[in-house]
Amino acid sequence: MSSQLAGLDASKLTITKTTTPKERLPNEQLVFGKTFTDHMLIIDWDAEKGWLTPQIKPYGPLVMDPSACVFHYAFELFEGLKAYKDAEGKVRMFRPDMNMARMNKSAARICLPTFDSEELLKMIGELLKLDNKFIPDERGYSLYIRPTMIGTDPGLGVHTPSKAQIFVICSPVGPYYKTGFKAVSLEATDYAVRAWPGGVGDKKLGANYAPCIKPQLEAAARGFQQNLWLFGPEKNITEVGTMNFFAVFKDAVTGKKELVTAPLDGTILEGITRDSILSLCRERLSKDEWTISERYCSIDEVKEAADKGLLVEAFGSGTAAVVSPVKSIGYHNQNIEVPLLPGEQFGPLTKQIADWIAELQYGIVESDWSRVIG
Amino acid sequence: MSSQLAGLDASKLTITKTTTPKERLPNEQLVFGKTFTDHMLIIDWDAEKGWLTPQIKPYGPLVMDPSACVFHYAFELFEGLKAYKDAEGKVRMFRPDMNMARMNKSAARICLPTFDSEELLKMIGELLKLDNKFIPDERGYSLYIRPTMIGTDPGLGVHTPSKAQIFVICSPVGPYYKTGFKAVSLEATDYAVRAWPGGVGDKKLGANYAPCIKPQLEAAARGFQQNLWLFGPEKNITEVGTMNFFAVFKDAVTGKKELVTAPLDGTILEGITRDSILSLCRERLSKDEWTISERYCSIDEVKEAADKGLLVEAFGSGTAAVVSPVKSIGYHNQNIEVPLLPGEQFGPLTKQIADWIAELQYGIVESDWSRVIG
Repeated sequence: MSSQLAGLDASKLTITKTTTPKERLPNEQLVFGKTFTDHMLIIDWDAEKGWLTPQIKPYGPLVMDPSACVFHYAFELFEGLKAYKDAEGKVRMFRPDMNMARMNKSAARICLPTFDSEELLKMIGELLKLDNKFIPDERGYSLYIRPTMIGTDPGLGVHTPSKAQIFVICSPVGPYYKTGFKAVSLEATDYAVRAWPGGVGDKKLGANYAPCIKPQLEAAARGFQQNLWLFGPEKNITEVGTMNFFAVFKDAVTGKKELVTAPLDGTILEGITRDSILSLCRERLSKDEWTISERYCSIDEVKEAADKGLLVEAFGSGTAAVVSPVKSIGYHNQNIEVPLLPGEQFGPLTKQIADWIAELQYGIVESDWSRVIG
Repeated sequence: MSSQLAGLDASKLTITKTTTPKERLPNEQLVFGKTFTDHMLIIDWDAEKGWLTPQIKPYGPLVMDPSACVFHYAFELFEGLKAYKDAEGKVRMFRPDMNMARMNKSAARICLPTFDSEELLKMIGELLKLDNKFIPDERGYSLYIRPTMIGTDPGLGVHTPSKAQIFVICSPVGPYYKTGFKAVSLEATDYAVRAWPGGVGDKKLGANYAPCIKPQLEAAARGFQQNLWLFGPEKNITEVGTMNFFAVFKDAVTGKKELVTAPLDGTILEGITRDSILSLCRERLSKDEWTISERYCSIDEVKEAADKGLLVEAFGSGTAAVVSPVKSIGYHNQNIEVPLLPGEQFGPLTKQIADWIAELQYGIVESDWSRVIG
């Protein structure tokens, strides 16, 4: 990009306040991504000028030429992160720099413009201040923030977009599990493939999502709640639904436990919760009792471990649920039972991780990962 | 889908004419997909009601909630076909039933609604009648028709869209090669992968396009015009850029020629021009002199044939260019020269096919493939 192009500049932000403020819904009526705050952030980009004047304005429809490349060639990417209110009413974001870094990587992969992460975060901070009343203050509740970038070029040629737009919308959300954890059943899926080497499965692109709905419906028709995505002749486990996957194995001889998740080899979404879990477990779990591994495990390894009583627990990880316990995996008419704590819907590490991360998100335990806005 | 849902119904079409008709650009100023006709066709769909009242109205912007699923999860697919004016001024579409069938397959794959192909074609016919003045009458010129379907559901949950929209926009276009064929150089690409078994590479989804721009820029930076997409350890040739790929080999002993293109195994776009070429060649080329094969050939097979003087020609096929001759293929610092006729930018079969198809498209030779709009 030429140095004459304007960079993203939070100091130029203009704010137009809504004249028709919405009522905030009671916490118990919140549904993920269904209602939005009063305002949105919009920043246009142009190949000749760079990033144009950022605007916060009332939440409202986008007006776009039907030939805009976002409608035809999937020039689109997004992020998902949350803002939390701590006990003192301060607003906090959890590792938002990670989302910005990933958003830039996604943009570069599909030839959309990159940007200064800190500048965008400053402007998201301004949006949060303006829409502060929509950030729930109850534990478990938060404001889901959806930064999105789309190609807005009109015209049907398939090429690098010369116009793009970042927009950020925010939706107040409740806990993923309203009445405590509910463990899910997975269908190990080898009839559809989410991502492949040389593809874009590691980026948060719209292109990775629509193709996964049909396999999800197929799994649901057979009584499973999510796909467990397998890959290759080895039937390696890659991800679960739209989450990263973790399993815990126990060594038959030493009793030492191993936390396993797939390595970031270009096909695995670089989950921020995944990264947080690995960091926390490396830091806080006893090295005598635990090994933390970024390696593939195959569905056969999981089956064999379960048969021998060496599968301890399994869970998905992502921004929406943080951790999502797994109770069973169906695979070619076999059923792999995944242990849960007696009478509970989770395994011990799953619960431990959920607590650790919530304490950081809500500022109960201070850390570099929690950024206070204001 | 419940039988109580309304099907697509052309008899309900409403037409609102523009009050500000555009001037038609002179043929020589036409650029692919840059200017559009006066009107567009829009049909909304709703999971509870089915297909709503179809509307032809003035070409203009779409107004859509920023949380619409087309912006986030790539619920989008498209088709491309052309309308031609024959010598008598009659408007013809070329095999439009094939586009409609493929559009329905694309929709089903990403859980967007399917529709009655003939009903949509009737309405596209009405749009063509209304915008007849934009259909160029010069040979080589045509009206490019872009039927598109998008998911319009507001809300950030990842699920089957409960609202969708078909829109059809039209752009007058000139010949792909304004001054006769211009053969292209390809870079055999194994550092990025367009499609994968179990993926969606055979469907005309937006998701397949944005990820291909970066590899194209990388190839261009090394002096090549398009990617030649390889797949697997065999380095099989799958497609070229956004076209299907054809090669002609000669048998060293018998002199018999073989026309080869990749089989429709789920990773190859089911090109309508591809299908037309196979049908015409099977029908019109001498069986004594030609074999027509849907099979993979590897880049090594092409290299070896070229080295032995047994590579006759190669070309891409698609709606935009019909056929696009290839002059060379770069692969790991090797250069494979593809023969062209002496002093020309094409091989003999490439030119023959271009002529055959143009005669059918412009109604010079009557066939079932050409549908007159009347």
